Amino acid sequence: MKKQNNSTEKLKIIPLGGLDQIGMNMTAFEYQDSIVVVDCGLAFPEEDMLGIDFVIPDVTYLEENYSKVKGFVITHGHEDHIGAIPYVLQKVNIPIYTTKLTMALIEKKLEEHEMMKTVKRKVVRFGQSINLGDFRIEFIKTNHSIQDAAALAIYSPAGIVVHTGDFKVDYTPVYGDAIDLQRFAEIGKKGVLALLCDSTNAERAGYTMSERTVGAAFDRIFLEHQNSRLIIATFASNVDRVQQIINSARRYGRKVCLEGRSMVNVIGTAVELGYIDDSGKTLITLEEMANMPPEKCVLVTTGSQGESMAALSRMAANIHRKVKIIPGDVIVFSSHPIPGNEKAVSNVINELAEIGAQVVFQDAHVSGHACQEDIKLIYSLVKPKYAIPVHGERRHLQAQGQIAASLGIPHENILLLHTGDVLEISEEKARIIGKVQTGGILVDGLGVGDVGNIVIRDRQHLAQDGIIVVVLTLEQHSNHLLSGPDLISRGFVFVRESEDLMDEAGRVVEDAVFLCLDRNVTDWGKIKSEIKDALSDFVWKRTQRRPMILPIIMEAAL
Amino acid sequence: MKKQNNSTEKLKIIPLGGLDQIGMNMTAFEYQDSIVVVDCGLAFPEEDMLGIDFVIPDVTYLEENYSKVKGFVITHGHEDHIGAIPYVLQKVNIPIYTTKLTMALIEKKLEEHEMMKTVKRKVVRFGQSINLGDFRIEFIKTNHSIQDAAALAIYSPAGIVVHTGDFKVDYTPVYGDAIDLQRFAEIGKKGVLALLCDSTNAERAGYTMSERTVGAAFDRIFLEHQNSRLIIATFASNVDRVQQIINSARRYGRKVCLEGRSMVNVIGTAVELGYIDDSGKTLITLEEMANMPPEKCVLVTTGSQGESMAALSRMAANIHRKVKIIPGDVIVFSSHPIPGNEKAVSNVINELAEIGAQVVFQDAHVSGHACQEDIKLIYSLVKPKYAIPVHGERRHLQAQGQIAASLGIPHENILLLHTGDVLEISEEKARIIGKVQTGGILVDGLGVGDVGNIVIRDRQHLAQDGIIVVVLTLEQHSNHLLSGPDLISRGFVFVRESEDLMDEAGRVVEDAVFLCLDRNVTDWGKIKSEIKDALSDFVWKRTQRRPMILPIIMEAAL
Repeated sequence: MKKQNNSTEKLKIIPLGGLDQIGMNMTAFEYQDSIVVVDCGLAFPEEDMLGIDFVIPDVTYLEENYSKVKGFVITHGHEDHIGAIPYVLQKVNIPIYTTKLTMALIEKKLEEHEMMKTVKRKVVRFGQSINLGDFRIEFIKTNHSIQDAAALAIYSPAGIVVHTGDFKVDYTPVYGDAIDLQRFAEIGKKGVLALLCDSTNAERAGYTMSERTVGAAFDRIFLEHQNSRLIIATFASNVDRVQQIINSARRYGRKVCLEGRSMVNVIGTAVELGYIDDSGKTLITLEEMANMPPEKCVLVTTGSQGESMAALSRMAANIHRKVKIIPGDVIVFSSHPIPGNEKAVSNVINELAEIGAQVVFQDAHVSGHACQEDIKLIYSLVKPKYAIPVHGERRHLQAQGQIAASLGIPHENILLLHTGDVLEISEEKARIIGKVQTGGILVDGLGVGDVGNIVIRDRQHLAQDGIIVVVLTLEQHSNHLLSGPDLISRGFVFVRESEDLMDEAGRVVEDAVFLCLDRNVTDWGKIKSEIKDALSDFVWKRTQRRPMILPIIMEAAL
Repeated sequence: MKKQNNSTEKLKIIPLGGLDQIGMNMTAFEYQDSIVVVDCGLAFPEEDMLGIDFVIPDVTYLEENYSKVKGFVITHGHEDHIGAIPYVLQKVNIPIYTTKLTMALIEKKLEEHEMMKTVKRKVVRFGQSINLGDFRIEFIKTNHSIQDAAALAIYSPAGIVVHTGDFKVDYTPVYGDAIDLQRFAEIGKKGVLALLCDSTNAERAGYTMSERTVGAAFDRIFLEHQNSRLIIATFASNVDRVQQIINSARRYGRKVCLEGRSMVNVIGTAVELGYIDDSGKTLITLEEMANMPPEKCVLVTTGSQGESMAALSRMAANIHRKVKIIPGDVIVFSSHPIPGNEKAVSNVINELAEIGAQVVFQDAHVSGHACQEDIKLIYSLVKPKYAIPVHGERRHLQAQGQIAASLGIPHENILLLHTGDVLEISEEKARIIGKVQTGGILVDGLGVGDVGNIVIRDRQHLAQDGIIVVVLTLEQHSNHLLSGPDLISRGFVFVRESEDLMDEAGRVVEDAVFLCLDRNVTDWGKIKSEIKDALSDFVWKRTQRRPMILPIIMEAAL
């Protein structure tokens, strides 16, 4: 391996998100006074983040080093890589560099947030490099489940780092070129300090199949179900998947209609930019479809993850305003449930089965991520000194670590980082020298960060056993009880059928209150905690539940 | 097919649970004045049943026909077949008939509920029949992931019905005999009116592997990891699985310790009754294990489904009081995540990976349910006139329906029922003649049925966006405002960082209240709804959230 520099300055690699989790991908590369940031994604909420819409990374470190940050370099247009851009750029307004389709999808977001005029943007072609401070960044063509995905070669005085982004190896992609393996090899020949490689499928043996195999599956499905309407659910962003549906539809004399807001948006953009070939005018509107025989139609819809508000879920629940599923319809899930969504997907399938529709899964999906043998291929081309698995939960990072070890990379050169770790890296050594502030900022409706741990814990508590509010009014000076205590519960028991329980609870609270007042307790905090303790004990004994108890004391002047 | 009777009376089959869902299995068979009930299971709560521990079937129909009910006949000892017994028998106290191990597990429950003296019980051997009113019930040996599972031949004047219970076909079971295929064939020869067959794996092609293949996998795992402690997570009720762990441990010179309350309970019962052979004295206590070298130990633990309070989850989170997982430990998941538990299991795996333990899945589990080819075998032996798929969600019932159709059963003889359907069935015809009251009764702590739809909806609402309580005190006669309105929120925003928002909200409520009072509105319902509307509008505009708003008006006499 060739030495890149003689500088004593070292490169720092600081993951600001995306490790130990799926989503929120964001990594800072820092060399002296230059920082470049790769990706700026959001994460979908964990199950226990009740009421949360999504989560964005804490970028305090970038705010504190604002003057150093030269640009955001984005690998591809999935939400877990671009979704936080409108939020983060309100804090750190730095130019964005990425490929054409990715930029178009980012611009949709910036338009929604009225940020088009304030954010600098530059579209980069594959093979092209951009200079950002001490860094040069080269965009390398890869394949993924969205078009225009790029790997990055990050040239720094301390050495070259290759970041794969999300990728797969597809020798026969539907649109455009295969992954530029030659360029990975060339850069590898120069000597690569570190490889940051996608870990999503690092637990899966073998190779990831080509997207084209799905096209062959579609042809079989179209052939077998010539007398049924076809409804195909897939990811809105999977442009090639939709292209293949259009191709099969054209071959079998059907028209294709898109349904679901994000499907219409993303594919609309892809058509505009020429990433989809609809020269056969196969795409029609829902209104045009209404006048056609069902067996001549294909509906491509969102909802492949069982999302409750997505088009397919609404169809299955028979609450979609325009599409009614009928017995005999064939529903194709061109997708695989993302971990955590299995139950939701299954619920939709049950509803479809209930209507009498036929559900098809077989071969209608391939992954967009490299499996073990593909990962080995990239390592073998790039031959990095250090392996830094990225994009994945701990189990996935660990699995890639084992792959790297199996290829002969020494144990001490395999670096399983955590978000926030500051990795200092050079030819001589790599070590974690510190930790920066990171974390997930919860977005709920319009609120960014106003829901934190305490609020979430309260929601979890409320969700589990509901709430009992205890209200009483005391006279301002005498501490005389003017009204109450009244008990009002929500989410605890069905009050009309639990009158005895609630009456008894009321007496327990009264006793606690009168005991305090008789003793001339004037500290309201003390009265509240007496109420809480007495009521909580009573409720636990009688129901083995722990509702939130909220005592409120009002003060009235006579 | 031979005709069974000339009676004009027909047999009724009434599923009281277990269709369109996993769990809560319970089916009533009714002929004139006799009812027998097969199984009495609970269901685990759906994701949206917040705070619920489990769900039991509504048995109003049995209560209304108490005098007809002759007995509960139980197929095997899993919770989804026996878990509701202590609750249901408080309403309909009828004798229980089942096999030895199943009865022992039921008796554990009856002991906990202090019902041993009041519930009649009779253990039945395979091949034995019991007479219950107009019915005769024969217990037929099957295989499943728990010992002593039975299929039932239900002889009625209207014909024979075969109910498989949960089953698989295991030619080489670990303990006891293989499924009694000859008896299925004999009964089939007599002529079977209807087959109620397990649908759980009806979507899976091929055959279910023998439990013994897991034993072979254990041997390989023990061989490969001779220098590590082994921790194996599996279902507490899988007696044969634990037997095989004991066998492998004995071969490789290790001792086995059980951890987790249900594991210790169930396996303890199995050892007592002779369902586990520990003649090598391989089982030791946790205290004995403490003094042994780790590589000589195997810990068999609950928590294979990622249940947060189970032993393995506590070990992974480093909050288990007695077992600390260390780097190099090998954790075997001898299980497959039940749909809905994938994410929880994955979280535990990530925690284990973080500690540096190695997680093994490969071949360490087989299903306890028949796959498609096994189902075809049973149909081909029994050759029923009617096919009634049971045990499963709609998709599974539909899949078994397709299997039955592929075997030549006419479409009109394949009956996909819903819970509550009253199926009237005879050689001449089968039709749904009505519907009985059924449903899930929610159990939360000690409360059975006191949490209904309204409470659950409130919990969902509270979980999503929290609550704002608005309190004010009015003078009894003058309607004069004595104190408030005060706003207290929980689970809405972090109040300390959202003071402006809450202050503004307070003013919005004040305006609404004063407007009412100025207009001399005395209807408190009206005042509350004005508060609700004004606050809800304001909050939605500012946050796009919809917290529960709970206005409380106190009345004080001066």
